[in-house]
Amino acid sequence: MHDAPPFEALLSTPDALRAFGQQAVVAAMLRFEAALARAQAAVGLVPGAAAEHIAAQCDVAHFDVPQLLAASAHAGSLAIPLVQALRERVAAVDATAAAWVHHGATSQDAIDTAVALQTQVVGAALDADAQRLVAALRALAQREAHTPALARTLMQPASATTLGLKVLSWAEPIAHALQRVQAQARDAMQVQLGGAVGTLAVMGERGPTVRSALAQSLGLADAGSAWHSQRESWVALACAVGVLVGACGKMARDWSLMMQAEVGELSEPQAAGRGASSAMAHKHNPVAAMVALAAAQRVPQRVAALLACMPQEHERALGAWQAELAEWAGLWISAAGAVRALADAAPGLVVHHERLRANLEAHRGVFEIDRALAAARRTTDLALQHLEGMA
Amino acid sequence: MHDAPPFEALLSTPDALRAFGQQAVVAAMLRFEAALARAQAAVGLVPGAAAEHIAAQCDVAHFDVPQLLAASAHAGSLAIPLVQALRERVAAVDATAAAWVHHGATSQDAIDTAVALQTQVVGAALDADAQRLVAALRALAQREAHTPALARTLMQPASATTLGLKVLSWAEPIAHALQRVQAQARDAMQVQLGGAVGTLAVMGERGPTVRSALAQSLGLADAGSAWHSQRESWVALACAVGVLVGACGKMARDWSLMMQAEVGELSEPQAAGRGASSAMAHKHNPVAAMVALAAAQRVPQRVAALLACMPQEHERALGAWQAELAEWAGLWISAAGAVRALADAAPGLVVHHERLRANLEAHRGVFEIDRALAAARRTTDLALQHLEGMA
Amino acid sequence: MHDAPPFEALLSTPDALRAFGQQAVVAAMLRFEAALARAQAAVGLVPGAAAEHIAAQCDVAHFDVPQLLAASAHAGSLAIPLVQALRERVAAVDATAAAWVHHGATSQDAIDTAVALQTQVVGAALDADAQRLVAALRALAQREAHTPALARTLMQPASATTLGLKVLSWAEPIAHALQRVQAQARDAMQVQLGGAVGTLAVMGERGPTVRSALAQSLGLADAGSAWHSQRESWVALACAVGVLVGACGKMARDWSLMMQAEVGELSEPQAAGRGASSAMAHKHNPVAAMVALAAAQRVPQRVAALLACMPQEHERALGAWQAELAEWAGLWISAAGAVRALADAAPGLVVHHERLRANLEAHRGVFEIDRALAAARRTTDLALQHLEGMA
Amino acid sequence: MHDAPPFEALLSTPDALRAFGQQAVVAAMLRFEAALARAQAAVGLVPGAAAEHIAAQCDVAHFDVPQLLAASAHAGSLAIPLVQALRERVAAVDATAAAWVHHGATSQDAIDTAVALQTQVVGAALDADAQRLVAALRALAQREAHTPALARTLMQPASATTLGLKVLSWAEPIAHALQRVQAQARDAMQVQLGGAVGTLAVMGERGPTVRSALAQSLGLADAGSAWHSQRESWVALACAVGVLVGACGKMARDWSLMMQAEVGELSEPQAAGRGASSAMAHKHNPVAAMVALAAAQRVPQRVAALLACMPQEHERALGAWQAELAEWAGLWISAAGAVRALADAAPGLVVHHERLRANLEAHRGVFEIDRALAAARRTTDLALQHLEGMA
Repeated sequence: MHDAPPFEALLSTPDALRAFGQQAVVAAMLRFEAALARAQAAVGLVPGAAAEHIAAQCDVAHFDVPQLLAASAHAGSLAIPLVQALRERVAAVDATAAAWVHHGATSQDAIDTAVALQTQVVGAALDADAQRLVAALRALAQREAHTPALARTLMQPASATTLGLKVLSWAEPIAHALQRVQAQARDAMQVQLGGAVGTLAVMGERGPTVRSALAQSLGLADAGSAWHSQRESWVALACAVGVLVGACGKMARDWSLMMQAEVGELSEPQAAGRGASSAMAHKHNPVAAMVALAAAQRVPQRVAALLACMPQEHERALGAWQAELAEWAGLWISAAGAVRALADAAPGLVVHHERLRANLEAHRGVFEIDRALAAARRTTDLALQHLEGMA
Repeated sequence: MHDAPPFEALLSTPDALRAFGQQAVVAAMLRFEAALARAQAAVGLVPGAAAEHIAAQCDVAHFDVPQLLAASAHAGSLAIPLVQALRERVAAVDATAAAWVHHGATSQDAIDTAVALQTQVVGAALDADAQRLVAALRALAQREAHTPALARTLMQPASATTLGLKVLSWAEPIAHALQRVQAQARDAMQVQLGGAVGTLAVMGERGPTVRSALAQSLGLADAGSAWHSQRESWVALACAVGVLVGACGKMARDWSLMMQAEVGELSEPQAAGRGASSAMAHKHNPVAAMVALAAAQRVPQRVAALLACMPQEHERALGAWQAELAEWAGLWISAAGAVRALADAAPGLVVHHERLRANLEAHRGVFEIDRALAAARRTTDLALQHLEGMA
Repeated sequence: MHDAPPFEALLSTPDALRAFGQQAVVAAMLRFEAALARAQAAVGLVPGAAAEHIAAQCDVAHFDVPQLLAASAHAGSLAIPLVQALRERVAAVDATAAAWVHHGATSQDAIDTAVALQTQVVGAALDADAQRLVAALRALAQREAHTPALARTLMQPASATTLGLKVLSWAEPIAHALQRVQAQARDAMQVQLGGAVGTLAVMGERGPTVRSALAQSLGLADAGSAWHSQRESWVALACAVGVLVGACGKMARDWSLMMQAEVGELSEPQAAGRGASSAMAHKHNPVAAMVALAAAQRVPQRVAALLACMPQEHERALGAWQAELAEWAGLWISAAGAVRALADAAPGLVVHHERLRANLEAHRGVFEIDRALAAARRTTDLALQHLEGMA
Repeated sequence: MHDAPPFEALLSTPDALRAFGQQAVVAAMLRFEAALARAQAAVGLVPGAAAEHIAAQCDVAHFDVPQLLAASAHAGSLAIPLVQALRERVAAVDATAAAWVHHGATSQDAIDTAVALQTQVVGAALDADAQRLVAALRALAQREAHTPALARTLMQPASATTLGLKVLSWAEPIAHALQRVQAQARDAMQVQLGGAVGTLAVMGERGPTVRSALAQSLGLADAGSAWHSQRESWVALACAVGVLVGACGKMARDWSLMMQAEVGELSEPQAAGRGASSAMAHKHNPVAAMVALAAAQRVPQRVAALLACMPQEHERALGAWQAELAEWAGLWISAAGAVRALADAAPGLVVHHERLRANLEAHRGVFEIDRALAAARRTTDLALQHLEGMA
């Protein structure tokens, strides 16, 4: 088995890497094949016994995943060697059942559905982490609602604000972006089933019913058609994730600036060995900000790749679909790492009140502070109410 | 006045170029300044007479736009020379009124609001063009619902489908993507008003009321807060436009393939001088597909730039905001060109039935055609109903 | 005439915008047509008198540029209306000469060559600005070679270094990147002449001689073949510019951090109205860093677009070439702005020695300073010698 | 151990995936640590016996790679747990030697050098594959030098050319791009050694000598300085690879078009199971073109990410460096897949002469063929000579 590029491990989560790994994709494709056979059996397209023989073999533990991966590179598709291996296993038990494996489906049906199932797993973790992050920020904003802070524009001192408002200016876009991810996921997390060219030709009139039942059994949506080369809902979900990462990156950028020694307004929580240096014992690096900033630099390019892959030829693309599959996983792996790192750090974020005050007071006389602060506090209270209203 | 890069003219629309031009942005900023003064007068923040003196000067014809642009490069902001020039004009009429120009606002308030106003104009045209495009495709799909056609996967002959289903596989994602643009525009097309650091400090408690009134008078939304460095709704709109362009690019790619001489299934409509060559009299180039394909290659990078600019520092960014402004215009200019070109061509799209049939029949015996066609026709009918249901 | 997107003016130079403007491209195409006719006359392909009649009309002042641009959008190419207009003008003087206009050439020959000529202009200014920048940095490094400074890793205090070494860590990559731009420009700045499909068919055996003479008369290279859809040298030049902008962005990022009020180690030079604010009289924004950071966020996307456009179909691309033309100009316009802004600011960069010292001394006892400083000074001296050796 | 994202396996080579895998990076970091200790021993900085004790433990087989990767995510760096584990192993043998592990080095020294060593491996394979590809294309061009073929512009029939010239228009840019990769690799494949902040402070005056010896023993260049946050040579190499992939993508696009059933001018070689379909027995998909087209859509985004990561803060970046490491591997993995797939397919490329002729002859009467063909043959002969001259 090829091992994962090592520097992803630093920037993602173990569960996201696992969920988009080789073992997981084969397992998900087998879930598809089992559920397909059963959905076809339910409408009488496939003998019930054959469906159960097929489903019984759909356990990833039975398959040599590294060998399948190697074969996929030769075949040009992962489904081809997997379907063949599954047919062979089924045939060993019941020769007639083997003919019903992958009945009426095409490679892309199995693969796209599998990727949707993998994305469900990562998406659920991302959602939980993002909610944890927003909750921690909301609590922090409440705690520091009226704490005076220096506002900066174009990286220069500008006026007075509150730490609460700064925190809300991170929390609200993240919360809003998360809502968009959730809404778009309901649209995009759909089963793929079209057969060779999207017409479900082999299944005859019962095709749409099979698709609908398959979707339901896998917890995915049924868009009412195949989307082999119509990727707009799918890519729109990627965009929503991209915007969420961007919103996280905004906060991480601010953290990185406020955590500079000379500014010293915030610190990431201390944990043994977290953010240490191999050369400098005194270092305490803001690792959560680092992970989020890395994602904020990588994810826009994943989104661009997915958008650029949208002009897919005819009924299945040559190159663009395959590129999309790889970019898709990369997007979620980065996003999962960013949100997890921030969600883990946010509850323990350390506020240095004396430095916040001193950095602001250094400008007393240069600009008016008190009236600005009163306005900032009013604005903070409104923003806090607004965030409460979103929950 | 700097003239526009010439190759944008080939790939966009005159109205989009004009709407995002120098004249237009200054006009829009002046609309902001006039509406702000009046909204402030309505709540008693600014004397009514001063507001009217200000509004009276807010006509772009009074200003030397090229000189303002040149000054903006020196100042680092377009608002600074414009506000100064406006103050001078107002002062020439009424010295006390001049002090109320741009009252409590910051450069970014004027500029972001102006860009939203410019985007309204381009967005309305984009919307109309996209609707025209979908309507033309729907009519074509109805007309050719059951026309046999060759389906191709990985750019190789695969099975039978209908031309109707191909057309619907273009129309539905475009229609769906357009709905997403419309929904996101309602969210993102918002007024910007926060004052120096987003707290409306100078306007005191009446600030939120002014913002709300300003939004209403300009036909923009009021998000309830400033979004100086919180760009997620804004960038989410860019993403929606990016997905729309991607969906257009998918169709354009298929057109380009089906219009090849050896395939010959479609042609763009003939118009005198459209798609001609300077060297080859016989050429009839598919110019609409060309424009859409160009956009589909450029727009993903605009979206990536906008996403990458999201980590904006503190209360106003150094570089990322300014980069975003330029990328934003570029995104819409490309998108407008793509949708217009396709909308203009789609109603006259020429279908070559005999070639469609011959390309399919060439594979009779290689794969089964008739049952596949029956399934494709059923699928087409369902997809047609689905598209009707979206309208 | 369409006016330029206004926010480019803030981020570029007037001369780069002009050089890539509509007027300039038409002028450059006319230079191509004049030089082509004369080169063809020199080998006897075109009557000498006809060539002179043609050349006499090749003055942009004779042409209605906005009208040509508008016609280009219809035709799908700028060359088509221009060649027609030129033929008409020549015919008005000498009917037989008109037949020799654009003889044996294709649209792309005129356009690509014109763009190379425009790029020459911008490239020369970029080169001069970059050299000015390196010279200013070299002088600064010499002046501050041994000035103690705090080194920071992962945005946290790390150890001692010198300001000289920091400056050299900006200067050397910029100087190196500039050398790469220069070397690649010699390769890429080439004439385009291939006729309809790259074979110079109309010119017969004299084609290569004409191309060589044309190249020489325009100060461009002759690659020995057409490069209608072979863009690798061209895009490699864009990459070299992209790397140069990235190296500038690294310095600008450091400037922006060192210019923060709480750090206070550097300031951009003061100039009346430069970096002011419309809302805050006390502001002195680092506008040069802003322009360079904006370019460093935009230019990678231009490079990506150009790379993504490389898979150009057959003998001339549908969409990818046209997209490339527009992206190409955008790349240079951004790059020119970044380098100019930094070159203008660097000679006047203000060093705050007391803050440099204080920021370092704050860590005395946390890490060892003096031995680190001695090493840093040795390293600085070596790096200074290295930079001198590059010149 | 996290397994690799499965869809990379389809689009890359097993050796590239392995070379950039977890096992390989740890092995390469250990090579660095061993070579560093020995280079330091040679100049008397480290006791010779200690260096040998260290080197003796630098075998990846001694280490629990998955555990190190997991620890890296916590620490924020892979070097920290590895150096600690190495120290523990050395201490178990010789307590005093352990103190000399990673002496005077920083995490980035070990990691960047390791990545350069990994890149050497992949780069050598890429180089060999690219040369194989160029050789196959050269042979094909010689064989088909004068074979008539239809030239197409804007995806429409244009004029006559030769298959030889088409092949040369693929081969020459690939050969040229490969030369650029080779030249840039000599510059960029350099050792990293700077210590904590690039000044080699701990090693005193012998630091530069150690770096030079280390470089020599690892077969890497010594740039004469650390390049912790000066990434221009490194990213310039990425750009060169990006241009090579773009040149490959151009050919793959043409293959995909010429291999369409209705065009039928070329086929990829047949191999059992290569390019088959899970749903359609008759399919023979152009898998090599698919892999190259996928890379041509992904690699521009990798280059953009690397360029966008160039503005690295101060003496080591927060986020940008870590992002760069991950993007770097992704770039090479894609590039290796593209070049290998094409190099494997090119020697067996099947030319369908009758279709080439028929596609051209279909336009006899529409445009002039014979004179165009004579010119194309002359142009082919010149281009063939040119390619020979490059070798």
